[in-house]
Amino acid sequence: MINQDSIVALATPSGAGAIAIIRISGAEAITIGNSVFKSIKNKDLTKQKTHTLHLGHIVDGNKTLDEVLVSVFKGPNSYTGEDTIEISCHGSTYIQQQIIQLLLRNGCRMADAGEFTLRAFLNGKLDLSQAEAVADLISSDNEASHQIAMQQMRGGFSNEIAKLREELLNFASLIELELDFAEEDVEFADRTQFHELLNRIEFVLKRLIDSFAVGNVIKNGIPVAIVGEPNVGKSTLLNALLNEERAIVSDIAGTTRDTIEDELVIGGIGFRFIDTAGIRDTKDIVESIGIKKTFEKIEQAQVVVFLFDGFRFQVSGLDYINEIEKVKNKYPLKPIIVVVNKVDLLSKEEEHNIDSKLETLNLKLLKISAKEKIGVEDLKNELLSFVNTGALRNNETIVTNTRHYDSLLKALDEIQKVKFGLESGLSSDLMALDIREALYQFGLITGQVSNDELLGNIFANFCIGK
Amino acid sequence: MINQDSIVALATPSGAGAIAIIRISGAEAITIGNSVFKSIKNKDLTKQKTHTLHLGHIVDGNKTLDEVLVSVFKGPNSYTGEDTIEISCHGSTYIQQQIIQLLLRNGCRMADAGEFTLRAFLNGKLDLSQAEAVADLISSDNEASHQIAMQQMRGGFSNEIAKLREELLNFASLIELELDFAEEDVEFADRTQFHELLNRIEFVLKRLIDSFAVGNVIKNGIPVAIVGEPNVGKSTLLNALLNEERAIVSDIAGTTRDTIEDELVIGGIGFRFIDTAGIRDTKDIVESIGIKKTFEKIEQAQVVVFLFDGFRFQVSGLDYINEIEKVKNKYPLKPIIVVVNKVDLLSKEEEHNIDSKLETLNLKLLKISAKEKIGVEDLKNELLSFVNTGALRNNETIVTNTRHYDSLLKALDEIQKVKFGLESGLSSDLMALDIREALYQFGLITGQVSNDELLGNIFANFCIGK
Repeated sequence: MINQDSIVALATPSGAGAIAIIRISGAEAITIGNSVFKSIKNKDLTKQKTHTLHLGHIVDGNKTLDEVLVSVFKGPNSYTGEDTIEISCHGSTYIQQQIIQLLLRNGCRMADAGEFTLRAFLNGKLDLSQAEAVADLISSDNEASHQIAMQQMRGGFSNEIAKLREELLNFASLIELELDFAEEDVEFADRTQFHELLNRIEFVLKRLIDSFAVGNVIKNGIPVAIVGEPNVGKSTLLNALLNEERAIVSDIAGTTRDTIEDELVIGGIGFRFIDTAGIRDTKDIVESIGIKKTFEKIEQAQVVVFLFDGFRFQVSGLDYINEIEKVKNKYPLKPIIVVVNKVDLLSKEEEHNIDSKLETLNLKLLKISAKEKIGVEDLKNELLSFVNTGALRNNETIVTNTRHYDSLLKALDEIQKVKFGLESGLSSDLMALDIREALYQFGLITGQVSNDELLGNIFANFCIGK
Repeated sequence: MINQDSIVALATPSGAGAIAIIRISGAEAITIGNSVFKSIKNKDLTKQKTHTLHLGHIVDGNKTLDEVLVSVFKGPNSYTGEDTIEISCHGSTYIQQQIIQLLLRNGCRMADAGEFTLRAFLNGKLDLSQAEAVADLISSDNEASHQIAMQQMRGGFSNEIAKLREELLNFASLIELELDFAEEDVEFADRTQFHELLNRIEFVLKRLIDSFAVGNVIKNGIPVAIVGEPNVGKSTLLNALLNEERAIVSDIAGTTRDTIEDELVIGGIGFRFIDTAGIRDTKDIVESIGIKKTFEKIEQAQVVVFLFDGFRFQVSGLDYINEIEKVKNKYPLKPIIVVVNKVDLLSKEEEHNIDSKLETLNLKLLKISAKEKIGVEDLKNELLSFVNTGALRNNETIVTNTRHYDSLLKALDEIQKVKFGLESGLSSDLMALDIREALYQFGLITGQVSNDELLGNIFANFCIGK
């Protein structure tokens, strides 16, 4: 049962800005809003059409709190599906607090985290995976994660799951029907078609499950370990990689941006660069601790970049090669890029010397100058080549949510059981149990099956006001 | 001439929240908005009524950037007086940037600080003092400063000035008319009535000028120096004073609040508590520097609170009295409150002992226990008694703006010159010059007289998006 009380929250980021939005939703939202609103044209908010805007003042008895614009949305034509009003007030924290307090005194209660979206879900405005996409959309900070969230919010993922579920449901009901006629030994469900469907579902599930590796990486950024000595030009390289993006950002006055430490967006994909100290042989205890940490970081990374000073390579080349081989032996499957920096300072001969020495490693070798921006684009392309953006380009569904991934794995397991049962002539009643479990897992993703604990977990991660 | 190009800015605080508002204003605002908006009901934004809301997507070619709500306001019925749209999008920084960039590519330019309000002023939606009140309103953080800004924004101050200006203008035109008939020696302006008006204007101007002291203090908070040794309970006292207010604030989940170091709101008025080390006699160089700083802080403060540990007073009482007398002699006009803390630990006899020793100082004495919250209300009332809140309670106009204060002082000067001229039989042509100057100063306040430099200075202090 949906709680119909009226909830209120600040929907815009906290802090001072030009304007702030306070949102109220619930059966009494418009009545409560009207009780504290004095329209400049003496309008009664409860008598206004949906999707209209009204200028006036928020008043607390004789005291005017602010001049505001009020938006009226009538259920079901609102985000939550309930009657909703949004108060657009001046953005001082003091005013925001005063208006919210006034609304609390007039019958609203503070919304819980994600409660507006929870109501949208409960009112059938969104399914569960779409609701989850809203939170992903708000936290998206690069093109790829934004695109995936947007696709999911618009129902791409749910549609794919819902279609499979429906087809499976058809067969399930035929098979359950057979159970009612068990004594007569009839087969309503065509076993060949059913087998074909199970294969198709298995194929789709495997594809979705595989996409999680890409999706997860896109959502969280791809970890790249940079192995290199202190003065090798790590920060110059990061700045060079960052250069373009920063230029775009600083075009927009008024948008502040957190310090970007080592997180860069390249070609719309997030990369997290992890600085490591290098792993040269040493007898020194303190350094061995450093080496241990370096190995840990390399283990977490999806790509390892060895960054060398081309100039120093002339002297310490063998040490460097030694280092690379150590990592290569320890993590034979980890992609490694060898980057030789400061190539602008090298003679042709010295370059050739490096080439021939590194050739034996059979690794991708890039010669760059971070300072002179030589070869930086090549490095970008190389990094991007490790991300399978095919699915992204082709607008295929990509799974990014651990909860969905978990349900998909369980559904696959059940589908494979059903398939095995079908192939080995399992009785319909036992097969029906496995089918039901698969249907249940599909339903969990879209929210056709849900429970309070599940909803609680999902919406607790939302921000308040959404 | 008003620039009619379309300006865009983020109107909500930067950072991630549930939603963000992007505002566009200008001749092409609705057309540009329409060019990137795909309504779910295939609506054409340019054909919609003013004050309506429309659901749809912001699209960049084939790419959907976000699902949004667009508000349409048609000039002159908008904040700026121009056609305006507001895009309510999901609050990720990435989405905000993408949409703003798209709008910039489609013919908008970034708004300057305060440019929306500047346009509102140029289009006659607000006068200049009202426009300034918008910025004050956004930065108001307590009841008093909010109330003053609100009153000013609603035209209270402008009306008072405009009324005086109009009356003066009437006489000015009569006197200027006399100049046209100079040879005939006529008097159109009744000198007695004019003298009466000048007196009235002088009275009002003086009241407004006097109100600046209160207004300034309300706007910036009243500085209170607390003189006391380290363990005397300063932070416990500040917490006790703060207690109520904090309780109200923490009721509202979702509104974060900056750390309130030493700035408290008491009875709707802001107080800034300045901690000082005390001023006991010493030969130590380092401590003398401390003492010098204490004196500087006392000089800046409007009220000095001496905070003593009642228990320790039994031993060091004379030192304390010595300290107070030193300050009293140096700043004879500075209000001083003597607060004896930890009164809950004292016997009646000890209390009496303190009373009799401090009696001779003839200062306000409060005995409190910050820890047990005894006497804290008395201290609040005592602090509030230093603020002349009469004007505030009676809803009188209070000047808080240095620019207005400056113009009022100059206007008063001119009015007094006119009055002196009138009393000493100055010729009409010379008197007319002084009247014009007074009218000019009045006009500067409301913006009936303005220039680019003045406007530039005022609006540069606004935030972007307002």
